[in-house]
Amino acid sequence: MECVLRPCRAEDCAEVVRMIKELAEFEKLPDQVEISDQVLREDGFANDPFYRCLVAEVPPEHRSRDGHTVVGYGLYFFTYSTWKGRNIYMEDLYVMPEFRGKGIGKKLMSKIAEIGVENRCSQMKFVVLDWNRAAIDFYQGHGAVDLTAAEGWHFFHLEGDALKQLARGQLGQ
Amino acid sequence: MECVLRPCRAEDCAEVVRMIKELAEFEKLPDQVEISDQVLREDGFANDPFYRCLVAEVPPEHRSRDGHTVVGYGLYFFTYSTWKGRNIYMEDLYVMPEFRGKGIGKKLMSKIAEIGVENRCSQMKFVVLDWNRAAIDFYQGHGAVDLTAAEGWHFFHLEGDALKQLARGQLGQ
Repeated sequence: MECVLRPCRAEDCAEVVRMIKELAEFEKLPDQVEISDQVLREDGFANDPFYRCLVAEVPPEHRSRDGHTVVGYGLYFFTYSTWKGRNIYMEDLYVMPEFRGKGIGKKLMSKIAEIGVENRCSQMKFVVLDWNRAAIDFYQGHGAVDLTAAEGWHFFHLEGDALKQLARGQLGQ
Repeated sequence: MECVLRPCRAEDCAEVVRMIKELAEFEKLPDQVEISDQVLREDGFANDPFYRCLVAEVPPEHRSRDGHTVVGYGLYFFTYSTWKGRNIYMEDLYVMPEFRGKGIGKKLMSKIAEIGVENRCSQMKFVVLDWNRAAIDFYQGHGAVDLTAAEGWHFFHLEGDALKQLARGQLGQ
């Protein structure tokens, strides 16, 4: 089946938000999705975009049961390692269930790696849920290393009131 | 003791590389540091910088035993969450051992949080080694959440030949 990858356009954001929600549902964390079509547009299509995104599109005759032609996406941005320099960070990689097994996820990931190498990135980074065995096998099959298991890195965040208090210099409790 | 925070300048990069190596030494992973002063300059001080950095500086009369006046740094960049929008990512936070306990680390982290909030970031993110109890206590004392422990996120990377093969579309093994 023909499937093309192309850069996401502002008008694709509603479809990307739909798939962000599908992915969060699969990851059993659907309540965490607060993003909207409008915010995704503002943050990705202004002068200084916060992310970049590729979408996978099939021709109308192969559209999904629900009528979608945009059937996958890979969202990424550039980050930095003080040890190894430029990195490309793959925030999300997703293909709709009915389009899996056709190599679309591999194509998206390969294209993100290509963009990374072209921009002299030494590493691709991403996070995976520890129970998502299929994803871990897929990534490890391509040579990815679990740095949490290998070196003990834990991923932290600080948000909401805690972030605001810290920003105001009201440190500690 | 007087200590000012200011944006890192290109001419500070040698001092920042020195501290990157000190931090990696503390983290028991010194062999992983490949960065050079020159690369750090190119990547941080071109038109489209890959990172931003704050340094903590003391006056000459309070310089370190080895003669350094730049005694800490916080290196960060903007990233993106498809669930919650703009993020600020703190790649490194470091204060030289002889200047610890004076609130310099807190000031650096607070300033990075402030920059995040000013730029409408909803989260600050970072990684910490699981054996680094002092750092974890410090971050959790400010409301940080260990997402690896809480939700099972593992941090992966793909580098070197594996990344190049993936970029060339030579997928799988």
